[in-house]
Amino acid sequence: MAGARPVISILTDFGLADPYVGQVKGVILSYCRDAVIIDLTHEVMPFNELQAAFILRVSAPYMPPATIHLCVVDPGVGTGRRGIILETTRGDVFVGPDTGFMAPAAEILGVSAAYEIDESRLPPRDVETFHARDVFAHVVGRLARGEKPSSLGKRVESYTVMRLPEPIIEGDSAEATIMHVDRFGNLVTNLRPAQLGLELGSEAFVSIPGREIRCRYVKSYGFVEAGQLLLTVGGWGYLELSVNRGNAAEILGLKPGDRLRISKLG
Amino acid sequence: MAGARPVISILTDFGLADPYVGQVKGVILSYCRDAVIIDLTHEVMPFNELQAAFILRVSAPYMPPATIHLCVVDPGVGTGRRGIILETTRGDVFVGPDTGFMAPAAEILGVSAAYEIDESRLPPRDVETFHARDVFAHVVGRLARGEKPSSLGKRVESYTVMRLPEPIIEGDSAEATIMHVDRFGNLVTNLRPAQLGLELGSEAFVSIPGREIRCRYVKSYGFVEAGQLLLTVGGWGYLELSVNRGNAAEILGLKPGDRLRISKLG
Amino acid sequence: MAGARPVISILTDFGLADPYVGQVKGVILSYCRDAVIIDLTHEVMPFNELQAAFILRVSAPYMPPATIHLCVVDPGVGTGRRGIILETTRGDVFVGPDTGFMAPAAEILGVSAAYEIDESRLPPRDVETFHARDVFAHVVGRLARGEKPSSLGKRVESYTVMRLPEPIIEGDSAEATIMHVDRFGNLVTNLRPAQLGLELGSEAFVSIPGREIRCRYVKSYGFVEAGQLLLTVGGWGYLELSVNRGNAAEILGLKPGDRLRISKLG
Repeated sequence: MAGARPVISILTDFGLADPYVGQVKGVILSYCRDAVIIDLTHEVMPFNELQAAFILRVSAPYMPPATIHLCVVDPGVGTGRRGIILETTRGDVFVGPDTGFMAPAAEILGVSAAYEIDESRLPPRDVETFHARDVFAHVVGRLARGEKPSSLGKRVESYTVMRLPEPIIEGDSAEATIMHVDRFGNLVTNLRPAQLGLELGSEAFVSIPGREIRCRYVKSYGFVEAGQLLLTVGGWGYLELSVNRGNAAEILGLKPGDRLRISKLG
Repeated sequence: MAGARPVISILTDFGLADPYVGQVKGVILSYCRDAVIIDLTHEVMPFNELQAAFILRVSAPYMPPATIHLCVVDPGVGTGRRGIILETTRGDVFVGPDTGFMAPAAEILGVSAAYEIDESRLPPRDVETFHARDVFAHVVGRLARGEKPSSLGKRVESYTVMRLPEPIIEGDSAEATIMHVDRFGNLVTNLRPAQLGLELGSEAFVSIPGREIRCRYVKSYGFVEAGQLLLTVGGWGYLELSVNRGNAAEILGLKPGDRLRISKLG
Repeated sequence: MAGARPVISILTDFGLADPYVGQVKGVILSYCRDAVIIDLTHEVMPFNELQAAFILRVSAPYMPPATIHLCVVDPGVGTGRRGIILETTRGDVFVGPDTGFMAPAAEILGVSAAYEIDESRLPPRDVETFHARDVFAHVVGRLARGEKPSSLGKRVESYTVMRLPEPIIEGDSAEATIMHVDRFGNLVTNLRPAQLGLELGSEAFVSIPGREIRCRYVKSYGFVEAGQLLLTVGGWGYLELSVNRGNAAEILGLKPGDRLRISKLG
């Protein structure tokens, strides 16, 4: 790994229409042109730290070991909240505001140390509304060119942790939360099939307000007819309620945060 | 070319809001951090293999020789359809589902061999709904770091080919299909001006349902007044029906798949 | 800097749904696979050269020194307008149509020379509607691999300059223009707080058609209650009218080009 190009993964709620992400990359590359940057997503809903936490936790394991994760959803930018660096045993580092949403991802990789970013070690700045560019990008750039977190802040004993909602299991039934709706309209829950003992090919009841749906739990979308509802394990590793070649979110009128009850049949 | 960084071009229908493309890149870069990745587009309409085929065929020649093309529009993911690697005489390689939409692009570069991906040579996986990440990205990563297609699957004699619609020429008139509508509202057809013998500066009739339009065939948009309809050859290499500084698709209410008749005048 | 990878920043109005940006990158990387490409933005409103000029001028200083800036908003593509290369004293180079919108950014970095692109030194082309790919990308690729601007065109004494609107200051009051609305609905003006002598924590009147707003000028969004209007200096370096955790553009019904009057209180 010696001499390997550093990998930087960026997640924000900035979108791609504004030049914000480009400016952040400009600052990072000013320190280290050898870095490889992965845009994890910039379409987190504005200020939605829960969505950011879920995307990060699911995605971090797929990034190359020792990735530097720059994570900025930051409605409190410029106020008292501190900036943090989380080191992990896999070698990955997470950089962003200490508001908790990075913690679930970092803890999956094993947090080994936390550092509070010391802004006095960074270039002075004129504005307080864009720390992604004026604070965190400098930190990431310096980490990418080989500096240690300890040169960018002081070690701290604790950091903020956001807890993601867990499903409530009651016998053969579970109340799950819709964590994400993807481009295809798949309704991604926080329930794993093993938690309910679901077996491939079996049927389940799905209850949403005003409607009860009977559908099969299958290996992939194409195992039911086009237009049919189904349950499957999506790329997120969780059960998702989907329509083969269709859009379940539109058909059912559901969105992130909505709940549904899934019951095993037979 | 020895030692040159491998170029990987990615086309999907995943969009950029979800972390799917980022996860795919994470897996690829885990094998080869030296790869250069081009996002050809991730905004293919969900499941629209025809649109993917057209974009790929037009774009592939502009990619650097020996590009690895990762192409995933895959409504049948996890079912019986196999994964394929198409080798070409230019040195490019196409990786994706064997459903035909990569073939027109690969055949322009000259297909020299096809390999059926042998998933037993790849890491085991838990889910069957995200082969872009769990199958194809591993294949692309290993090709990028120098492995041969033959180490990833067995050579096969045939592969699936999708045929793109061709215009129907009748004397001085042609029935063309709208293959794509771009951000500017340009209506990109499948007709080349030479097929109709159109000469720059001449006029043509364009018939669409309920409307007959007389417009000039010009070298570029700015050769007619702002707001005027025109025919020109766009970046796709085909005739497109456009409005100078305006949006032809909105003005005419046309969309991909619609047909129009173009007739030479005089 | 010898041997460092060249950085290329790209700004267009092409969007990301079409394969246009991907094709441009393919051509550039055909010349120089070692280039690092930053997508500044591709979501300039179609044909909006003023928006492009503002984004470029604000963003260019954040790019690494010696960046090659490819800038294409080009409604007159294929007509008489020439292509230009602007060299700057910081080492950056700007490449695009000579229509003026690159000039404000280049002049901030100090224009040292201008070259008219000589298309006879580039590969012949079939179409005249996509100079970003068929002209400018070739120029950028050759600059990236080390050629001098003088090998791509002849030096010229003048180039086109677009002037950005300036605010009109009258005592304790200023008429400002909304230059940009970002993803969060922040209304970015062309007024700097020092031009009005505004002090942090003080109040101001903001007049828009049909409405007078009293709000505080604060260090960042979070210094007022959620849902409250505020003035702050955004990442653009200018005053912006914003709503903490809300969308000012939607609430006030304002858009780029609209004007507002900001008056100091007390």
